[in-house]
Amino acid sequence: MTNAQAATKIVRVSDPVNLEFPFETLSSDLTPTDAFYVRNHFSQPEINVQAWRLSIEGAVEKPLQLTFPELLSMPTHTVTSVLECAGNSRVFLSPKVAGAQWGLGAVGNAEWKGVLLSTILERACLAEDAVDVVFEGADKGVPDEQPKPCNPIYYARSIPKSKALEANILLAYEMNGAPLSEAHGFPLRLIVPGWYGMASVKWLQRIVVTEYPYDGYFQKIDYAFWEERDGLPVRQPITEIELKSQIAQPAAHSVIDANSTCLIYGAAWTGSSKIAKVEVSVDGGKEWHLANLGESDNPHAWIFWHYQWKTSATPHDTILMCRATDTEGRSQPLTRDLNKESYRISHTLPISVQVR
Amino acid sequence: MTNAQAATKIVRVSDPVNLEFPFETLSSDLTPTDAFYVRNHFSQPEINVQAWRLSIEGAVEKPLQLTFPELLSMPTHTVTSVLECAGNSRVFLSPKVAGAQWGLGAVGNAEWKGVLLSTILERACLAEDAVDVVFEGADKGVPDEQPKPCNPIYYARSIPKSKALEANILLAYEMNGAPLSEAHGFPLRLIVPGWYGMASVKWLQRIVVTEYPYDGYFQKIDYAFWEERDGLPVRQPITEIELKSQIAQPAAHSVIDANSTCLIYGAAWTGSSKIAKVEVSVDGGKEWHLANLGESDNPHAWIFWHYQWKTSATPHDTILMCRATDTEGRSQPLTRDLNKESYRISHTLPISVQVR
Repeated sequence: MTNAQAATKIVRVSDPVNLEFPFETLSSDLTPTDAFYVRNHFSQPEINVQAWRLSIEGAVEKPLQLTFPELLSMPTHTVTSVLECAGNSRVFLSPKVAGAQWGLGAVGNAEWKGVLLSTILERACLAEDAVDVVFEGADKGVPDEQPKPCNPIYYARSIPKSKALEANILLAYEMNGAPLSEAHGFPLRLIVPGWYGMASVKWLQRIVVTEYPYDGYFQKIDYAFWEERDGLPVRQPITEIELKSQIAQPAAHSVIDANSTCLIYGAAWTGSSKIAKVEVSVDGGKEWHLANLGESDNPHAWIFWHYQWKTSATPHDTILMCRATDTEGRSQPLTRDLNKESYRISHTLPISVQVR
Repeated sequence: MTNAQAATKIVRVSDPVNLEFPFETLSSDLTPTDAFYVRNHFSQPEINVQAWRLSIEGAVEKPLQLTFPELLSMPTHTVTSVLECAGNSRVFLSPKVAGAQWGLGAVGNAEWKGVLLSTILERACLAEDAVDVVFEGADKGVPDEQPKPCNPIYYARSIPKSKALEANILLAYEMNGAPLSEAHGFPLRLIVPGWYGMASVKWLQRIVVTEYPYDGYFQKIDYAFWEERDGLPVRQPITEIELKSQIAQPAAHSVIDANSTCLIYGAAWTGSSKIAKVEVSVDGGKEWHLANLGESDNPHAWIFWHYQWKTSATPHDTILMCRATDTEGRSQPLTRDLNKESYRISHTLPISVQVR
């Protein structure tokens, strides 16, 4: 962590360092790298890129050991994608739940450049009976919560084989046009557009193809939830980002001039489909007004929106809210589903302001 | 729980009631029903057998709803099998771990009579893509440990399809020649010979065949452990009973006559294979002596063993131990593997005695 990073971000946890983007400063489509949130589970590892190799092993016909220069020499691909921490906006939950108390800023939008995962997997040649593809980072430690392994583990997350072969999953070595920084996963980071950030493993060192469902700590204990199937609760990994919009300005607890025009603006994103509309409420959810939507051709990037609010002449306290709807007709729920436990906080979030 | 049960067993947990067989009273090959250990996760359910049905559903071609008389009219099968709680002997662990502090008696051997599971599954006709068979009891509650579902769940456990079709798994309605008691799962209990007791679901109400691995609470959170596969820790359900022998007499802290003959005896069992020998040490594991083995034709029952110990004339404190070896050459380890967490306590257990 450089001092510059610490200066522009909110420290949510100091050890290991977890830093939040101050969402009220949202101004550019691409979140500047030094303002981009940092979610660490263990201490940032030190990597000697000369000695570093990306190992592709397990249920593959041709195991690979790739050097950094070898990766750089392969065909490149670029994708602009939101990364959102699965615990973003946790501070809004009531009752309080364990975990870093993220506000609105454990989310960012960046341009990622690297090699398509499918290119590497095709080269390694997946076995017929491959089930999951596991991505192991170089960051290592003992997780916080039971049940946990006795010994330190590497951070690892998997995606199913069919998902791994999709044409937008990237092994990224550049972020926003510059080499990936150490804080963001140098030399190589997986980017899974449309999935919560826990899937985009940093400091990638090993890709293990398994012939069995990978039931690792960050797959079935943490970053997981109970889903009812056949009337039985079963533990499922968190995957796709949920439809969400957030207000950047006015920030919570702002004082706004009465009898004036206030620009309410923010961003909206979704894991699949496309944002169709964003609505804004200036009275705690009683009435909803259509916001103006920005343009975006990129399905995984966020989209900006704004709404001109004519404030009344009468001083009052009120609650601002925004709510996105996608092209499949899904809308953000108005209330929290408690079955979601401490992740996927995607209901409309109340922003208290004063008109004076 | 009747008063008679409470009188003969040790209360390990009072709510929900968890009762232990005083292993030092071991005397008959079949553990008397009223002395047999009781492991409850939730309160004992009340079942009206007239209204009760066994439902077989999910990935089956012919879903079934069986009444109790219908089950009684089907071909019967009898098996004598050990049931051992996966946490048996937990009190011997150091450092201490959470969970009921079972001594030696969360184990028993009984004769079970009922209908073969394979008979029922063949009648229901499993779908081609069936993966797991889930057994749901009528006992319901919120489990103790996180991560757990918000709402009460039924106790449930699964076995893989291939295991479910084996010819020794029973839907039992009789125990030791008498109708199954309420405490032991009336009207119907699954019996999985060779697996720890958590698999033998009591108060069976539903069999759900799934087309996906069943990752329920008692499958991946509790009654589970970390196993390293491909260098990655993965969460696995506890299944097969491990090779084990226990000393019934002398009991811990007994005072034994010097210069006499003391009969050391106990039982030995294993989840698969067969007991080949049991050895006894009367000096804390320095020297080992072959014990005399009883007879058993039943692979899932326990086997008795004994050893005549000539005590020395000199008063001293010592530690008795026993160690089983199976027909595949496996022996009980002398020390605890800490990776096993709080279950499968199958190393040699020290019994301190005094010679006076």
